[in-house]
Amino acid sequence: MPRPPTDGPVEKQALTTTSEARKPRSDGSPTNALAADLTRQLGPRKVLHQLSERLNYRYDAIQFGVTPLAVVLPESTADVVAAVKAARAAGVPVVGRGAGSGLSGGSAPMQEALVIAFTRMTALQVFPERREAVAQPGVITLKVTEAARPHGLIYPPDPASFRTSTIGGNLAENAGGPMCLKYGVTGDYVTALEFVDAAGDVHRVTRDAYDLAGLLIGSEGTLGLITEATLRLIPPAKFTRTLMAHFAEVGQAAEAVSAAIAAGAVPAKLEFMDRACTNAIEDYLHLGLPRDAEAVILVDTDGNDLDTVTGELALVEQACAAAGGVTRLARDPAEADALWQARRSISPALGRIRPQRMNEDIVVPRSALPDVVREIRALGDASGFHLVQFGHIGDGNLHPNIMFDPRTESPQAVHDLAHRIALVALRHGGVLSGEHGIGTMKRDFMTDALDPATLDALRDVKRALDPAGTLNPGKILPDPQTPEAPHAHP
Amino acid sequence: MPRPPTDGPVEKQALTTTSEARKPRSDGSPTNALAADLTRQLGPRKVLHQLSERLNYRYDAIQFGVTPLAVVLPESTADVVAAVKAARAAGVPVVGRGAGSGLSGGSAPMQEALVIAFTRMTALQVFPERREAVAQPGVITLKVTEAARPHGLIYPPDPASFRTSTIGGNLAENAGGPMCLKYGVTGDYVTALEFVDAAGDVHRVTRDAYDLAGLLIGSEGTLGLITEATLRLIPPAKFTRTLMAHFAEVGQAAEAVSAAIAAGAVPAKLEFMDRACTNAIEDYLHLGLPRDAEAVILVDTDGNDLDTVTGELALVEQACAAAGGVTRLARDPAEADALWQARRSISPALGRIRPQRMNEDIVVPRSALPDVVREIRALGDASGFHLVQFGHIGDGNLHPNIMFDPRTESPQAVHDLAHRIALVALRHGGVLSGEHGIGTMKRDFMTDALDPATLDALRDVKRALDPAGTLNPGKILPDPQTPEAPHAHP
Repeated sequence: MPRPPTDGPVEKQALTTTSEARKPRSDGSPTNALAADLTRQLGPRKVLHQLSERLNYRYDAIQFGVTPLAVVLPESTADVVAAVKAARAAGVPVVGRGAGSGLSGGSAPMQEALVIAFTRMTALQVFPERREAVAQPGVITLKVTEAARPHGLIYPPDPASFRTSTIGGNLAENAGGPMCLKYGVTGDYVTALEFVDAAGDVHRVTRDAYDLAGLLIGSEGTLGLITEATLRLIPPAKFTRTLMAHFAEVGQAAEAVSAAIAAGAVPAKLEFMDRACTNAIEDYLHLGLPRDAEAVILVDTDGNDLDTVTGELALVEQACAAAGGVTRLARDPAEADALWQARRSISPALGRIRPQRMNEDIVVPRSALPDVVREIRALGDASGFHLVQFGHIGDGNLHPNIMFDPRTESPQAVHDLAHRIALVALRHGGVLSGEHGIGTMKRDFMTDALDPATLDALRDVKRALDPAGTLNPGKILPDPQTPEAPHAHP
Repeated sequence: MPRPPTDGPVEKQALTTTSEARKPRSDGSPTNALAADLTRQLGPRKVLHQLSERLNYRYDAIQFGVTPLAVVLPESTADVVAAVKAARAAGVPVVGRGAGSGLSGGSAPMQEALVIAFTRMTALQVFPERREAVAQPGVITLKVTEAARPHGLIYPPDPASFRTSTIGGNLAENAGGPMCLKYGVTGDYVTALEFVDAAGDVHRVTRDAYDLAGLLIGSEGTLGLITEATLRLIPPAKFTRTLMAHFAEVGQAAEAVSAAIAAGAVPAKLEFMDRACTNAIEDYLHLGLPRDAEAVILVDTDGNDLDTVTGELALVEQACAAAGGVTRLARDPAEADALWQARRSISPALGRIRPQRMNEDIVVPRSALPDVVREIRALGDASGFHLVQFGHIGDGNLHPNIMFDPRTESPQAVHDLAHRIALVALRHGGVLSGEHGIGTMKRDFMTDALDPATLDALRDVKRALDPAGTLNPGKILPDPQTPEAPHAHP
């Protein structure tokens, strides 16, 4: 849940770690032993130890954590190994970090830690004949496609933050994006990984038995620190066509989507915005969106054959009309871009409503969407919070967002509402996260999603790869002893 | 490696297990304590204890193992739980098994064990609106598509044995098939799993962090026994077109394939057969295949738009011609089927050459294929063994097959040749297995493929989920103490 910007209270929420990892707090001075040791080993250019510098590394795009003891900016796998070993020697946990654009708290330290920020590890090589790119974790997501495009290739995963997010962060959270309905998520494009484990050993793994690479992907740096990834590239579709449709009811939109997919259309992108979301964007940009519509969807079809692409869009258009929707086809790329501008501006539009928000990330069966959207709407109305819903409705990934002002509204109430939303998803056969990860935000909800025996199995896996619990403690796995404890101290 | 059909020598190759799991051998009588206990709990219909019955469960399609102490034929997850708990109480390891059509020894017990054969767990439900099927492990692969097709859906993974193989076996080995170039392997279609762990606890997992489902897939029953899988279904392509091409050199075929893919064709299937393979088929079926060609490829393109499908096939045809190949387009589905008959008959054709074969399963970068095929050919010629090569050349998956007669040819020499072939793949940046798994056949080679630290990490994962080492011992992971020991005792 959102943390107040102070180091105190969240201490209570740290995952069980060995006592050696819980050194007495430093006073924030630049002379703590770990920072000094790292500076000695790596040189001053790679280590941040001033409080003013460290403060920036305690939060991601939404969640707050604890100010790190020191920050290392490695330039090589060897630097990462040195940093992990130094932290281990000092009994300090390690938290990996990319651009900090995450939404679930994955990169926010939950106790005093060494942050390893990968932003300088930006080596990127494209191998067109293998249709692969080899990227260090600090490579910005968009750069992969930029480097591949001259060779007629792209890297499809496109999280909304792809202009700033890094490959390492995308891997840590197994990030998705609008294109994941047709093209899959980050993990689907990984053929090999290099990672540094809790002991500082370096491993190179492919997607063989046991799929250690798959285990690392989405593990938020709790099982190892990914230092290089080999990524699959594909040729981009030659043609793309865009449609917007709006509906008087959310159920109509969901029905149209299901009917279009059943008729054989597999849209490249399929985004949904509810009325509150559309109005937030309209207040912000005055794009002329239909303020009265309960649901707006944005659809791209793509492919190499124009007839097929327009044919698929026609299927979507017919399904929308049959469900009672009003459709609008983009006549050219400029108009398509204008339509998509609405989707891209959701985050800034919501930022104007309240200073903070909790961004949920549930996935539910497509057939359950009308009920789920309605139930969450009702929960939002009953709570009194400003709540908007949007998401990649094609694969059932919905982002209910709760807007709030922590000065006047209770973060505990926000957390409780997020919890009730998660329970709606689980009741309809859904899961807690589609593309943001579990992080700190949803780790308490894991006890709802998984039975105790399975949670124990996850803990066994964690312990196997990180016996001392020093890798990003306080993430994904709820505290085994007192799962409800974090609720008590918002 | 291939085992002689006797229980003795392979004992040496069992993975380290707890001493409790190594009870004195039973004399094969139906009255061993475990069989008696299981019969009491599950009833006589679900337990096989006669030697004549148990003998059938000691091998897969190629590899031999040890005759099991007893065989359970569970009809529910509860039966599996009871069987695992009974085996645990008796200190006997557990080996899961589907149709036994595997090629790497995954389902062959390597020490006296309880075999759990899933062939009676055949419940299958299709949920068209979710585009998913829920299958028990004993469902035959083909049945999934047969059940889905009336709803306009298919299940793409198509291992060569899909008419007999089971979903459980496919999951255990993460099976591929010709369609995996365009459509992916078994694991790509799994959205959720139920499994029974080493202690007999039941878990249900989706593809969340940590991706325990992904870890189970391809783990050959060494981390848990999968008792149910939720599988993604997709609409089949409306049109398919087929082409055969032959070449004077293997390099030309590889060049044609790379050029076609670079030009934008993504074939649904792309199979390669070398001269020895083509001649074996020709000796068997007299299809009129070109006996002098060093390489024959079979290509399907598919899609929903006929122009695109024929356009992609034209790209392949042009690339083949430009590389010096001779092409032949199938005029109709019957002719396409006749061309594919060649590929389907490889196994029976090879069975006529020698009574046994070792079927390798390497994957190498497509660009390395000409060198790899040449080097393996040279190794085969130098060894004196009859060696043929075929495989899904589109994704670099090559199956060098070593034919041999264990009465006159040394299984150790076969194993050594297979090892040298594996080393060729690794030297060219390849991996040990594309779709057959590691099993017993390639576990010795794992020390070549992975560094010691990474192997230790895999062992840590194994220990986390199977602390006593009772789940399918002797598979995937080489013996940590004496990795070369198995070589000494063929």
